[in-house]
Amino acid sequence: MTDLNGKIVLGENQYGKAENRVVRIYRDSPRHEIHDINVSTSVRGDFTAAHLVGDQTAVLPTDTQKQTAYAYAKEKGLLSIEDYGITLGKHFVDDTAPIQGARIEIDEYAWERAVVDGVEHDHTWIRKGQEVRTASITVEGKGEDQKVWIVGGIKEFVVLKSTGSEFADFLVDKYTVLTPTHDRVMATSLVAQWRFTRTDINWESVYSGIKEQLVAQFATVQSLALQQTLFEMGKAVLEKYPFIAEVKLSAPNKHHFLYDLSPFGIENNNEVFHADDRPYGLIQATIARDDAPDAGPAWNT
Amino acid sequence: MTDLNGKIVLGENQYGKAENRVVRIYRDSPRHEIHDINVSTSVRGDFTAAHLVGDQTAVLPTDTQKQTAYAYAKEKGLLSIEDYGITLGKHFVDDTAPIQGARIEIDEYAWERAVVDGVEHDHTWIRKGQEVRTASITVEGKGEDQKVWIVGGIKEFVVLKSTGSEFADFLVDKYTVLTPTHDRVMATSLVAQWRFTRTDINWESVYSGIKEQLVAQFATVQSLALQQTLFEMGKAVLEKYPFIAEVKLSAPNKHHFLYDLSPFGIENNNEVFHADDRPYGLIQATIARDDAPDAGPAWNT
Amino acid sequence: MTDLNGKIVLGENQYGKAENRVVRIYRDSPRHEIHDINVSTSVRGDFTAAHLVGDQTAVLPTDTQKQTAYAYAKEKGLLSIEDYGITLGKHFVDDTAPIQGARIEIDEYAWERAVVDGVEHDHTWIRKGQEVRTASITVEGKGEDQKVWIVGGIKEFVVLKSTGSEFADFLVDKYTVLTPTHDRVMATSLVAQWRFTRTDINWESVYSGIKEQLVAQFATVQSLALQQTLFEMGKAVLEKYPFIAEVKLSAPNKHHFLYDLSPFGIENNNEVFHADDRPYGLIQATIARDDAPDAGPAWNT
Amino acid sequence: MTDLNGKIVLGENQYGKAENRVVRIYRDSPRHEIHDINVSTSVRGDFTAAHLVGDQTAVLPTDTQKQTAYAYAKEKGLLSIEDYGITLGKHFVDDTAPIQGARIEIDEYAWERAVVDGVEHDHTWIRKGQEVRTASITVEGKGEDQKVWIVGGIKEFVVLKSTGSEFADFLVDKYTVLTPTHDRVMATSLVAQWRFTRTDINWESVYSGIKEQLVAQFATVQSLALQQTLFEMGKAVLEKYPFIAEVKLSAPNKHHFLYDLSPFGIENNNEVFHADDRPYGLIQATIARDDAPDAGPAWNT
Repeated sequence: MTDLNGKIVLGENQYGKAENRVVRIYRDSPRHEIHDINVSTSVRGDFTAAHLVGDQTAVLPTDTQKQTAYAYAKEKGLLSIEDYGITLGKHFVDDTAPIQGARIEIDEYAWERAVVDGVEHDHTWIRKGQEVRTASITVEGKGEDQKVWIVGGIKEFVVLKSTGSEFADFLVDKYTVLTPTHDRVMATSLVAQWRFTRTDINWESVYSGIKEQLVAQFATVQSLALQQTLFEMGKAVLEKYPFIAEVKLSAPNKHHFLYDLSPFGIENNNEVFHADDRPYGLIQATIARDDAPDAGPAWNT
Repeated sequence: MTDLNGKIVLGENQYGKAENRVVRIYRDSPRHEIHDINVSTSVRGDFTAAHLVGDQTAVLPTDTQKQTAYAYAKEKGLLSIEDYGITLGKHFVDDTAPIQGARIEIDEYAWERAVVDGVEHDHTWIRKGQEVRTASITVEGKGEDQKVWIVGGIKEFVVLKSTGSEFADFLVDKYTVLTPTHDRVMATSLVAQWRFTRTDINWESVYSGIKEQLVAQFATVQSLALQQTLFEMGKAVLEKYPFIAEVKLSAPNKHHFLYDLSPFGIENNNEVFHADDRPYGLIQATIARDDAPDAGPAWNT
Repeated sequence: MTDLNGKIVLGENQYGKAENRVVRIYRDSPRHEIHDINVSTSVRGDFTAAHLVGDQTAVLPTDTQKQTAYAYAKEKGLLSIEDYGITLGKHFVDDTAPIQGARIEIDEYAWERAVVDGVEHDHTWIRKGQEVRTASITVEGKGEDQKVWIVGGIKEFVVLKSTGSEFADFLVDKYTVLTPTHDRVMATSLVAQWRFTRTDINWESVYSGIKEQLVAQFATVQSLALQQTLFEMGKAVLEKYPFIAEVKLSAPNKHHFLYDLSPFGIENNNEVFHADDRPYGLIQATIARDDAPDAGPAWNT
Repeated sequence: MTDLNGKIVLGENQYGKAENRVVRIYRDSPRHEIHDINVSTSVRGDFTAAHLVGDQTAVLPTDTQKQTAYAYAKEKGLLSIEDYGITLGKHFVDDTAPIQGARIEIDEYAWERAVVDGVEHDHTWIRKGQEVRTASITVEGKGEDQKVWIVGGIKEFVVLKSTGSEFADFLVDKYTVLTPTHDRVMATSLVAQWRFTRTDINWESVYSGIKEQLVAQFATVQSLALQQTLFEMGKAVLEKYPFIAEVKLSAPNKHHFLYDLSPFGIENNNEVFHADDRPYGLIQATIARDDAPDAGPAWNT
């Protein structure tokens, strides 16, 4: 290929404030409620002058984005992260002339009430480390042209099954030494994301329902491959919720290697494993409806 | 001080295999059980020759320690980490002539059964991220002179209370700018360790009972200082279990700063906080009985 | 929007082995050489049967991908990560019928020779923690239709300037409280990636040259905004290397807040800062030529 | 053992502010200097009332300790971390009646000047990730009774040698399957700490000199065991510096496993390795002079 000599131009760009750790306590009654999030905002628009000549006239500072994230937790409330993210994203686009689009990404950490003498405590919680709930909200355009995309999700959701998983009859080449198996441990730290096609959703109940489906399929499918399990997980979510267009799953195959105890004359009938860190398999798949509306920028981080 | 010119000698030393990730599945019935640990072994003795002239005659390889950790998960079983650690530690000392002492440190990760259609699943689990259970076992000496010290514990146990915590009337010097408060968020990622004086313990039930005490005190004490809360937590454990000699607590004060919303004309009545990462307060205390037997090497990592 | 009822289908998918930690020593002479990488492979193709019915006939195991990554470090050599990645990616596509595309992502960790008595040592190194060099290779199609995209990069490259950075004259809204400044600390942990349009490159020398350009611009541009600095960095790279089509930069603004020492009567003339962890600004920009050839899947992770 | 029924009392305790990220710029001339540290303070004394009844009268807030750490970076200066730590530690003990002891722990991150057109830049730096320098300062007692202990150190110092390391002729038991080797890769992420017996030290030059000794021994000793290498490293430091009483070394044996390429008919003559994460060997040793003065609380974290 011959050398390039085209003009040097600014391409895609965005900026924002990442990882605002907002904690919102509702204390209208003695029985408090807590919402604990990590929210990252970013905005898009024509910021050419800032890049080319350092002109900030059109630039809403990242510090302002931070202030707004905290202020909105009180002014607008912080109950469902999807609603909070939509409100925040729309604000940046609607109320700031140069901003044409916004992307809000939120992680939510769950807390469960401490139980004292068998009773849930009013204002004490234990961090429930089981998973992180996520949401990504993208807002584009002003006024009647405005569009909003909502992606919900879960991550760091670690699941394991100690049987009911196989891997055999695979393609073999000269570098293949793996032994087929019809009984293995399968474990993953699941990342799942689902794209909504509507915003009038009971976000809390749908989240619980999706998690339930993911777990049920993982548990009950006799897995011939992690790929198959993932497909069934995504399919179950889509079958249950007609307002979800697609599900993206990313699943590290966290290898649990059967430990070789034969040198010590000990039988190891799938009982003792070494949980290895690296490398790990990584299986990624999208399960979608064939009438899914265009994803637009929904997945653009 | 004048310069030193003494002979250069080997001081305290130990070696072992750290972070063996042993997973043990019990599958004697269709309802499997899982134990998932991270075990580190180390041994002590006269290893002068290895250090001074590289003579390994007395050195049981760290690889062998690893093999033993995995083999024992099957041969001796892996139910309570305290029992498993005692068995492993005694083996190294009893069965290897040059080894005079052993230290076994174990982290246990809890899993809870997946629930499918309202029923606990036989062989599928979700990692319960709430806390890590710990145990440190020290064995010293052979035969009748042998002594064993057992320390149980919990870590990464994140708790928060949204009221019921004060901090006021403290010492003031020229660098003091902190404002006293009678209502703040108090949060910590607790590390607690307790030293047993017996080994005929129902480890599982005691662990649950201690965790219950820690939570109850954290929740119900009107805290004038994190120090006071920690003391009450340790005291409650000691009062409940006469076979525990002392409790060590280490508690980062994970600051939740009230966010200043006044520039925006918004009142913030302990509702919106910034959860800061660093720096953090760090409060450490030992709560003990005055008739506690000598700790010996129990706390020497 | 009305509910969806389309057929549920498999969308984009890929699988591979992530984070193979390959270390290659060249020891043909007493002066050894070391290459230390973390390589992730993934392959794409028609794996519908694996997802829908668990049929692995077309699936080259991730374990085989791992074996190949290690074997190729010897068989084909591991000098420049770009060459190694191209060879590995082409192999998967060329030699495995069902595989239509491959993506190889590599991190390289640098080591520098230990210096003993002023002389570089033959076989001892110190890990040079300054940065991680990266490469992403995408291969698509077979035979004459095959295309290859190469992206080089750097990450975890932490740079700081203690003056020569301003931020002022920005957009102000009701949530803006930030004070303009004409002298601040600017620091970032830079991620930069550049897309090549040719493969007959002296990868090592270009990498060094790009790093040099990035540093020079960061140091010498009087920065009116991080955006401006990033643009100049990308532009300098493109101006120097006509075979690079575009540069993507992602730069956290690692805030160094001027510490308020005024309560203690101490002047702080940009001398004492608190280096904060979170939140941080995040500025992302692509700087490209307007005659850049299509990026195809070059950026699809 | 019979149950305990002793009085419950407060044992050892301390509190402070951990991980203050202080960055100090010297800008008296256009050629700035930078010192970047993470400092943790803790104080000891009679804080019984704070623990038992929540009385803070004797408690200097951790916030005040933080303010002081930042203020002293300007007031007293931040050049050598040892001097800064001594000054800070003495202040807490000397100027605060209830404080009887202080422990200051400091990590220092090194930066190297950016080079632009062959010239070191005045105010731009690249973070030098090679190692973290450490210091622990303990101050005990008031007035003439005051004692100070200084421990210097290095951590995250990753070194590797690709030959010149053996491990053979070790003790064998029934769980031993390791094969002896006379040529292996040896790598570690070294933690070393050395105790000074004086405070009138050129801290910078001694630090460099110790690092040089550690590297030289690691490189040139034909290692029969990591234990032997550590001993020689500690010994070399003590031989060079008569004012150092003891050296503590902790060295994970970061295993580089020779990759088995024989299934593919490829010879692997110590050329291709898998760098494994866990488990790892962990070798710890103290090398001391037999006339070393008492360590007192120098090592108590």
